[in-house]
Amino acid sequence: MTRSKLQVTGFQASGIHCGLKKDGALDMALFVSDRPCSAAGVFTTNLIKAAPVLYDQEILAGGRPVKAIVANAGNANACTGQQGLDNTYKMAQHTAQALGCEAHEVLVLSTGVIGLQLPMNIVLDGIQKAVDALAPDGWDQAARAIMTTDTHPKLEGRVGPSDELVGVAKGAGMIAPDMATMLSVMATSANASPDQLQEMLKNAAELSFNRIVIDGDMSTNDTVLMLANGASEQAISPDFVEDLNHVSKALAQSIVRDGEGATKFIHLTVSGAQEHESAIQVARAIATSPLCKTAFYGADPNWGRIIAATGYSGVSIDPDRIALDLVNADGSQVIALVKDGAPLDFDEMEAKRLMEDAEWALNLDLGQGAHHTTVWTCDLSHEYVTINGHYRT
Amino acid sequence: MTRSKLQVTGFQASGIHCGLKKDGALDMALFVSDRPCSAAGVFTTNLIKAAPVLYDQEILAGGRPVKAIVANAGNANACTGQQGLDNTYKMAQHTAQALGCEAHEVLVLSTGVIGLQLPMNIVLDGIQKAVDALAPDGWDQAARAIMTTDTHPKLEGRVGPSDELVGVAKGAGMIAPDMATMLSVMATSANASPDQLQEMLKNAAELSFNRIVIDGDMSTNDTVLMLANGASEQAISPDFVEDLNHVSKALAQSIVRDGEGATKFIHLTVSGAQEHESAIQVARAIATSPLCKTAFYGADPNWGRIIAATGYSGVSIDPDRIALDLVNADGSQVIALVKDGAPLDFDEMEAKRLMEDAEWALNLDLGQGAHHTTVWTCDLSHEYVTINGHYRT
Repeated sequence: MTRSKLQVTGFQASGIHCGLKKDGALDMALFVSDRPCSAAGVFTTNLIKAAPVLYDQEILAGGRPVKAIVANAGNANACTGQQGLDNTYKMAQHTAQALGCEAHEVLVLSTGVIGLQLPMNIVLDGIQKAVDALAPDGWDQAARAIMTTDTHPKLEGRVGPSDELVGVAKGAGMIAPDMATMLSVMATSANASPDQLQEMLKNAAELSFNRIVIDGDMSTNDTVLMLANGASEQAISPDFVEDLNHVSKALAQSIVRDGEGATKFIHLTVSGAQEHESAIQVARAIATSPLCKTAFYGADPNWGRIIAATGYSGVSIDPDRIALDLVNADGSQVIALVKDGAPLDFDEMEAKRLMEDAEWALNLDLGQGAHHTTVWTCDLSHEYVTINGHYRT
Repeated sequence: MTRSKLQVTGFQASGIHCGLKKDGALDMALFVSDRPCSAAGVFTTNLIKAAPVLYDQEILAGGRPVKAIVANAGNANACTGQQGLDNTYKMAQHTAQALGCEAHEVLVLSTGVIGLQLPMNIVLDGIQKAVDALAPDGWDQAARAIMTTDTHPKLEGRVGPSDELVGVAKGAGMIAPDMATMLSVMATSANASPDQLQEMLKNAAELSFNRIVIDGDMSTNDTVLMLANGASEQAISPDFVEDLNHVSKALAQSIVRDGEGATKFIHLTVSGAQEHESAIQVARAIATSPLCKTAFYGADPNWGRIIAATGYSGVSIDPDRIALDLVNADGSQVIALVKDGAPLDFDEMEAKRLMEDAEWALNLDLGQGAHHTTVWTCDLSHEYVTINGHYRT
């Protein structure tokens, strides 16, 4: 379905400007169901968790129905102590009052700078404004309202025979695997129990949001929430699970493509590992290596840096079994760089030209086993340094 | 002692241009003792080890005397298979022939690009040239000849009552703790057994080379070698150990100060840890975080990124006990940013001005125990991206 037609039966969404962002950009989103929903969440594994993360985890632990999610950009409400927790609760309470439901039916998301208290007068006025702006086709506005350094909104949807699924996400920095790595909200009219929804969401996140790396930093706030309001009265089908995985993967990949300063999108596949965990560990070492990422940026087929990162990944690799191929986006061109741990004779200019494409793949074979994984990552550019050297100024 | 007067009784050194670097810069160094030396080494922990690392480890394992170290820049001789090992042996053999000693008395160092075979005709001619250039005061030339992206040579020396100690090093990129992180050669006229020398060198490296972080990458080649020729006929004194630690620390710090693109030198102290290992793990998470390093570059007192890195370091921290101070280079100005895990009210412009200095400190107290460590690190700048995006072009 096209973006303008993204809708889910029984859901409304909105995105408005309340004043948390100084440049007048949208900074508050609201997602509301007209009936109680099963809810599920995947959260950051950072031990420093923002107030809304702690709050949402507590709400979801209860397993009770949820009707709304309120989200703000411009302030992470992290490292804000008891006052931060109180403010998160006030956001839920105020949203509930405006919607005519209970505070424990409202989940909260925040993203932005760490360590500042929320200006609650602005936030509370904003919530009323967001309620007033609710509309069945408000998803695009909502996706815009959770953006921070994102350059465009991220939303995806699928229409099944009897139900719909919509997801929005924001990302850009502090993106690494092994955690819920950004903010995402998914809503569906399918019918699922909270436990069923949690299981599906966890699996979908594992194959999508937990497989992307921008800079290796892990946020205090990152959260994926999903609501299922059962309006379709249809139980979950295998097709629905496939749709959810597809939407999650599309959102996750769009976060990498829009990574802070990213100029290249790289499919990094590690195969031949003795364990699945080992494949992930090697992929993560490469995807977070500043030397690899700057070589990607410079379109420099300096495979030695990739092999070196493999060597320090902590995985017990056998240097003499490693093979590395560079592959273009549609798979029509394969340049073998390394085999049996030794360099191959390849056309360096041809490899450089391939790496100048906006999208390509690296296939690293450890030659030790049958496990493999694919991680999506981006390069480290001058623009990344500019964005993060001057984030708040 | 001043650089021009750096000498160690019984040692000669040289640095010459043989042609491995295309720009005419010095690219081969030689260090020779007129009598057999005790030798010790600390090596990269990367599982992908360059040929000279494998070779040196084997030589040192034998515990036999060593007389010379030959080093080349411009080519790492890593990921070069059996041919690479053969070439390392040829370097040792050729040096030994020219000096009139045995191949097993010669250690080898290489640094530069990974994955290319050494052009042996150039290397072997270079060795003869380096032998011809040997001089008691050749240390500065030798220090220049092992540079890659270093902007200046690094050498340090101490003169004791009866013996001398000189060290040279090169660094710049691929610098991280928990390994020998660069090339360094130390020579002394003191008298020590190989075991004693190894013990002293390991301790010195632990407090210096293993406490610096530039980009978190770990090289395939990094090595610290030390030769003691006993010319002073003096046994090791506590003062000598102190001198060795001092020289190692000075060399390690000079590597960080000259880190690729570095504009800031940061003393990062983590205290209050339950274990020494935990303090190092937290310090490493912060020192390798691209978000922290770009904030250092931008002089942005965005302490939230430091706290977030602490939270994902893998150490079981208690968010409510964390304290963080920003301190200027001479310790006369202390700005408390966080206490008990909560933000303090501080003058942001004052903090920014302090961070605009070329050198300052961060003191992070985990509030959980009595263990602490200090790591030296630098920022991540546009220049780092420029250097590494175009390393080979």
